[in-house]
Amino acid sequence: MLEWLESLPLADHHCHGVLDRDLDRPAFEALLTEAETGGPPGTSPFDSQVGFALRRWCPPVLGLDAHAEPDDYLARRAELGAAEVNRRFLEAAGLDVLCVDTGYTPSAILDPPELGRLAGAEAYEIVRLERVAEDAASSGVSAEGFADEVRARVAERAATAVGAKSIAAYRAGLELSGERPRDAEVAAAAGRLLRAAATSAPRVCDEVLHRFLVWCAVDAGLPVQFHVGLGDVDADLRRGDPLLLIELLRAMDAAGTPAMLLHNYPFHRHAGYLAQVLPNVYVDAGLATHNLGHRAPALIAELLELAPFGKVLYSSDAFGLAEFYHLGALLFRRGLAGMLAGGADDGAWTPADARRVAALVASGNARRIYGLRARATLAAPQE
Amino acid sequence: MLEWLESLPLADHHCHGVLDRDLDRPAFEALLTEAETGGPPGTSPFDSQVGFALRRWCPPVLGLDAHAEPDDYLARRAELGAAEVNRRFLEAAGLDVLCVDTGYTPSAILDPPELGRLAGAEAYEIVRLERVAEDAASSGVSAEGFADEVRARVAERAATAVGAKSIAAYRAGLELSGERPRDAEVAAAAGRLLRAAATSAPRVCDEVLHRFLVWCAVDAGLPVQFHVGLGDVDADLRRGDPLLLIELLRAMDAAGTPAMLLHNYPFHRHAGYLAQVLPNVYVDAGLATHNLGHRAPALIAELLELAPFGKVLYSSDAFGLAEFYHLGALLFRRGLAGMLAGGADDGAWTPADARRVAALVASGNARRIYGLRARATLAAPQE
Amino acid sequence: MLEWLESLPLADHHCHGVLDRDLDRPAFEALLTEAETGGPPGTSPFDSQVGFALRRWCPPVLGLDAHAEPDDYLARRAELGAAEVNRRFLEAAGLDVLCVDTGYTPSAILDPPELGRLAGAEAYEIVRLERVAEDAASSGVSAEGFADEVRARVAERAATAVGAKSIAAYRAGLELSGERPRDAEVAAAAGRLLRAAATSAPRVCDEVLHRFLVWCAVDAGLPVQFHVGLGDVDADLRRGDPLLLIELLRAMDAAGTPAMLLHNYPFHRHAGYLAQVLPNVYVDAGLATHNLGHRAPALIAELLELAPFGKVLYSSDAFGLAEFYHLGALLFRRGLAGMLAGGADDGAWTPADARRVAALVASGNARRIYGLRARATLAAPQE
Repeated sequence: MLEWLESLPLADHHCHGVLDRDLDRPAFEALLTEAETGGPPGTSPFDSQVGFALRRWCPPVLGLDAHAEPDDYLARRAELGAAEVNRRFLEAAGLDVLCVDTGYTPSAILDPPELGRLAGAEAYEIVRLERVAEDAASSGVSAEGFADEVRARVAERAATAVGAKSIAAYRAGLELSGERPRDAEVAAAAGRLLRAAATSAPRVCDEVLHRFLVWCAVDAGLPVQFHVGLGDVDADLRRGDPLLLIELLRAMDAAGTPAMLLHNYPFHRHAGYLAQVLPNVYVDAGLATHNLGHRAPALIAELLELAPFGKVLYSSDAFGLAEFYHLGALLFRRGLAGMLAGGADDGAWTPADARRVAALVASGNARRIYGLRARATLAAPQE
Repeated sequence: MLEWLESLPLADHHCHGVLDRDLDRPAFEALLTEAETGGPPGTSPFDSQVGFALRRWCPPVLGLDAHAEPDDYLARRAELGAAEVNRRFLEAAGLDVLCVDTGYTPSAILDPPELGRLAGAEAYEIVRLERVAEDAASSGVSAEGFADEVRARVAERAATAVGAKSIAAYRAGLELSGERPRDAEVAAAAGRLLRAAATSAPRVCDEVLHRFLVWCAVDAGLPVQFHVGLGDVDADLRRGDPLLLIELLRAMDAAGTPAMLLHNYPFHRHAGYLAQVLPNVYVDAGLATHNLGHRAPALIAELLELAPFGKVLYSSDAFGLAEFYHLGALLFRRGLAGMLAGGADDGAWTPADARRVAALVASGNARRIYGLRARATLAAPQE
Repeated sequence: MLEWLESLPLADHHCHGVLDRDLDRPAFEALLTEAETGGPPGTSPFDSQVGFALRRWCPPVLGLDAHAEPDDYLARRAELGAAEVNRRFLEAAGLDVLCVDTGYTPSAILDPPELGRLAGAEAYEIVRLERVAEDAASSGVSAEGFADEVRARVAERAATAVGAKSIAAYRAGLELSGERPRDAEVAAAAGRLLRAAATSAPRVCDEVLHRFLVWCAVDAGLPVQFHVGLGDVDADLRRGDPLLLIELLRAMDAAGTPAMLLHNYPFHRHAGYLAQVLPNVYVDAGLATHNLGHRAPALIAELLELAPFGKVLYSSDAFGLAEFYHLGALLFRRGLAGMLAGGADDGAWTPADARRVAALVASGNARRIYGLRARATLAAPQE
């Protein structure tokens, strides 16, 4: 059964583009960690759970032995070139669906159709809401016209995208009210945004606007993803506890809109609680799964303490390095398979139940929630 | 030793009544989870740790094979009838003491004497403080007379009850001051309560009143239970962290009144800390134990990291379904026994010490703290 | 490999003095727990993870069998006398470096040179910042002169000390701003401190002063330790979450000053996150390691989920009882060795990598960060 469980194709419902250029060691190390640099003198981010997991599982995909030294690994990576490296890891990930967040693109990165092609998977787009608002703010719209302009843009994107994403946790924090903001409140907040944007690029960091954007997505019929818990050093983890979001989650639940809590570590037990008590709340363990490496099974077991199996999704949150597509998928599959097979061995559930709920978590839940069979794809599935 | 540990009778110091009528699948599923409904289309709360634990352990009590399908299980349950089902699970739980919270009765449910008779156990009552205050508010008392009226009612209940319970965590939250409120403060708060009660049923949700009620119980000589951590969807888990309660716990500790932190998940390590540093603070893992199912051993191990063995109690927090009396007891006993027997195998403690502290946790601590040999019982022990 | 890993000498970068007098059972029990007393009637702090760990590992050092009964253990301890007991446990700890916090001395206790001599280790001093400020406040300094006086005292201590320590978590809490306070703010806060000190001993509990003290240490070139997480009953754990400190940590990171988060339990995963995203943040599991006893391996595994191996230190946080020097070191070494050897057995990393990162955590990181080869020692190493 373990083998069968480990062979399941995954729906990666939250991921990003990967870089299409070669990387030297400092650039690679900076992408390996959520810090902005590779660490102080005398330390290497390779000496970490994610570093060791990468050295264990990724070199064989490039034709090296497991546990290759970092310099040897990077030399082989450069020899093959970014295009080939990306192709190998996306293919190795064993995905059948990708939902790609296209809102964070600090460098030239592969877009959803290209990622889908490399992965041999259906690829869909997730709209980053704050990016939509910031683009609108740069378009010359007035404060009074802002709400309508943003609504129209979100609705337009909803024609092809399968979900929306809020990064409130990175900005004003997750303590968002459950009330729909009135248009006058939005106009006032837009005025502040536009005034600040006179001297620098517009940046949404305002409780009213984050909340308004979520309701735009709800009204457009899009499930909404929320960044929760760990992220890069910009995130103020104090404000990223999903329990802070409970009022908005209750309001969205009443509206019947699925809310996806992403990442969640170290608040994954809090997220699991919300997934149990609110019918339309879903959770994953993206980013944390590959960051924890050898400890990923503990994370998956803890997430699944309270979260029902019908409410858990897979995501890699891969960004930059194609390795993370592979690592996230491999570690999640192994962790889930180990837990389910172990439980079956202990008599906690039957092998048939283990297989059934594994299929839900691997892709069934994502396909059901995002309505993936009914929507247009950005890239046709391969074969 | 494992067998011996697993045979220990338990004192269930926090539980509720069970329904005395038959249940269809939607009604059963709604009681299986802390959500208000059984989940969105395409999911079932049976696909969860608590669902699988129920399917593993409960069907044999009703004469079915373990892992029976939900529909088969519910058919058998209906065939036997609620009275027989309740009798079987209460008896299977292996309890010798029940302390029943009688303050939450949304439906007709079994009362403490009946539960005690079915369980073959001594049954005692726990007074829900907010209910006492709400009953007083409905009695025509004035705001000025409220404090004395409530004090008198709590004192009267203390003649037969063995403890009191606060549900501040469900209402104003656990951040309660350590000060005794002055009578003028209580009168002002009572005025607000009574004015609101003019248009709807009185509902205590006020920092002053929750705190006042706790001191009424302290003055009446009752140990005080606090709802902490997970609960149904009404609970705002942000406000249910036991660390928020530290000022009141310190004040109660100085008064020598035992405080019991109930449930605690996902804050059970916080609760364990409080049980170590405050001599009169006790903890349990009720509700969470059966919710976590196959993962209950992890919870018990984490709770017992800092909490001394003399400060840990057992509770089921069973409500509605008699299955939870059995599941909670079985999972707690197995988890505790596994941990203690495993530690003895590793040489962490002696088998004699393991037996001694197991007996404390199973019932010795509860009997000592609630003074159970010295008080009147509501229902005489069976046999 | 397990044996090799368990033989590594440790740098204990945060510890305290031990009592040089004999102890009766109540005094010993009070030191065994973070509570102020040994617990309520009917319980003993020996019935806890730390109590069982002590009874397992400490009696053999005094010539008794493991698991000796508490009274037998204390009788043997009295027979040998405090001096011999201290000598045996300090030696058994297997340390090569001690960094001793000299700021908390409620009783006559051994000083760093004496501790170093007994342990056969280099001994260094850590300056407790609040103590420096309180000594200055007692010296007759004016509010206006306070800032300069404290700066001068910290700079003077930096000539021999290797680090500074903040106990803000015990006082005003960890939510400290990242801004350097202006001199006028410090003078105003000093005025408040001095006025309060007219009637009782000066006690720093002021966000501005805690923050000012940290910057004094930064300017004096000292790494700064922060008490985080569990501690004795005075600690308000709500205010001891390291996430509250993120603004000051970011500012210190930009200044290139190492910040050490001490203890961290139950927030050790939060601390691990900070150690990953901020290059100059380091973490340990002091105090919690011996408090968790048989569960210490779980703590170490969780701390090392996100914290890179180059960012983790060892400390005992031993205070009062010399047993804690031995217990902390033994449990940390076993926990780390078990995790690293287990990972190597599973193929998560190579045995060579396991040895290399074990050496970093055991002492390499501490030597590098505190610059221990370049500084004057308070006590010459005892080879």
